[in-house]
Amino acid sequence: MSSRKGNLMGVRTDVKVVDATLRDGGLCNNFEFTDEFVTELYKTNIKSGVDYMEFGYKASRVLFNEKDFGKWKFCKEEDIRAIVGDNVSDMKISVMADVGRCDFKTDFLPKSESVIDLVRVACYINQIPAAIEMIEYFHALGYETSCNIMAISQASLDQLDEALEMIANSSVDIIYLVDSYGSLFPENTARLIEMYLKAAEKGGKKVGFHAHNNQQLAFANTIEALSYGASYLDATASGMGRGAGNCAMELLLGFLKNPKYSLYSLLTFIEKYMIPLKQQGVVWGYDLQYMFTGQLNRHPREAMTFTAEKRSDYCEFYKSLLDNF
Amino acid sequence: MSSRKGNLMGVRTDVKVVDATLRDGGLCNNFEFTDEFVTELYKTNIKSGVDYMEFGYKASRVLFNEKDFGKWKFCKEEDIRAIVGDNVSDMKISVMADVGRCDFKTDFLPKSESVIDLVRVACYINQIPAAIEMIEYFHALGYETSCNIMAISQASLDQLDEALEMIANSSVDIIYLVDSYGSLFPENTARLIEMYLKAAEKGGKKVGFHAHNNQQLAFANTIEALSYGASYLDATASGMGRGAGNCAMELLLGFLKNPKYSLYSLLTFIEKYMIPLKQQGVVWGYDLQYMFTGQLNRHPREAMTFTAEKRSDYCEFYKSLLDNF
Repeated sequence: MSSRKGNLMGVRTDVKVVDATLRDGGLCNNFEFTDEFVTELYKTNIKSGVDYMEFGYKASRVLFNEKDFGKWKFCKEEDIRAIVGDNVSDMKISVMADVGRCDFKTDFLPKSESVIDLVRVACYINQIPAAIEMIEYFHALGYETSCNIMAISQASLDQLDEALEMIANSSVDIIYLVDSYGSLFPENTARLIEMYLKAAEKGGKKVGFHAHNNQQLAFANTIEALSYGASYLDATASGMGRGAGNCAMELLLGFLKNPKYSLYSLLTFIEKYMIPLKQQGVVWGYDLQYMFTGQLNRHPREAMTFTAEKRSDYCEFYKSLLDNF
Repeated sequence: MSSRKGNLMGVRTDVKVVDATLRDGGLCNNFEFTDEFVTELYKTNIKSGVDYMEFGYKASRVLFNEKDFGKWKFCKEEDIRAIVGDNVSDMKISVMADVGRCDFKTDFLPKSESVIDLVRVACYINQIPAAIEMIEYFHALGYETSCNIMAISQASLDQLDEALEMIANSSVDIIYLVDSYGSLFPENTARLIEMYLKAAEKGGKKVGFHAHNNQQLAFANTIEALSYGASYLDATASGMGRGAGNCAMELLLGFLKNPKYSLYSLLTFIEKYMIPLKQQGVVWGYDLQYMFTGQLNRHPREAMTFTAEKRSDYCEFYKSLLDNF
């Protein structure tokens, strides 16, 4: 039984495109984007029809020293407002809050005083109760919320069933499938999205998908997730994101048939800002070391070190991964 | 109704992996591979469990001057034998013969005198009768044959139905779906493979798939084709191939569960030979200009010129493509 929603020619009006360039891409350059870059990306996203733009993390300023990072690790209200003013646009603004790395009780204004629309709560599957506490808090403040369960390729189906039921009973608006390790194949993605959707629909919630490109499947998994009913789709300009990066926004906008989405504005941004970023030495994207960790269903941390050390002894690195299984 | 064959965990013993590095990759470097490269690739493919290795084209030496190309555009018997001897291995050897660009009546020995096992006849959909003439000729000489219908994303379903019926009634062994423009999405690929399989099974034939990576879907489409019943799967080391390149062999070998396939030997080859090739300036692989032609379902020739001219004005190029629709 196939339960695909819609088809390759039509428009699915439930689709929301989420630009995560600053947030996942910020992991590649310590969140040190220029104000010009952020302002132009904001304008570009509006012109491209993007539905949400994620500005970064709301990380704890107790745990992390502000001087060690660019400002988009903290997403202070005034910093976002310096770019967007009151955000007089149809595009919504999101930030990410990690369980255990966010002082959520002190760092969030009531929604009525904030330009932020959506708070995405990121957690591992064993942190669902803590995530739900945060979700209920943000919901009470008036925000839209999502629960982004990371590293899903290492969760058992039993765990996932329970986690989804717990989240579906919360006030959350969107439940996200997150392929942190880039280990999922489209068939896995389809089945997981069906599981998510079953739980989500009972609670009147939507499903989202966030991909990584370790096996050159970020775009393929994203459109497969879409096809099986995910409606919130993460992407980043030029696929900028940790390690192998994410689903490239230009591939996604080129795919979606809704005429509200426009590729051309994004291309001008890529040409003027993303290509120079790469030329300046900011590194992300598919490479063998990330393929290895994706195939082995592992955190990319060793591959990121391999990259940072500019190593090219792929075979030795591969053997070291097999030794550490 | 889903008609997937097998699953993500098991082994499909009908699978045949075809290495097309020299043939499609040769389009990137004018077929000028060193003998050392070819010999090591041959050894690597045997160790990796690859089922067929394609050495190149059997191009007409009347139409093309031998002095203008590396020898793998012509694949003379003595040149292949200089690498493989009598090919005392379980791996079979293939060459490609293009309709209209091959002197097939003079350039092929009887199979009993040749080390070649499989002749792949490449054609456009309007050339099926000429392809069948060649297939029958090669079949009579004793070779395995395939019919590789190129640029399938521009064929109409009516044309394709007729073409498949004609080919299924020929002596061909394998019918190939070829996504020359890298325009297919996995859903398209699945449906087309089902069409091919229906025609092929009536005639007792197998189905193959050859991908291009214009939309970062070469691997995704290849495993989707596999899942829907394709058994001959093309891939190339590091995805080397014309324009955006092909399905990367390292992704495919990392995916297949049959223990006969081994990734590690290929990694040593990539580290020693493929990465230096890139460093020497041979260019292939996903880039925006190829994404454009893939999204627009166009031949990549303008994108190849853009690449060759080392242009980086992607927006201007994109507009020029739209103007020439």
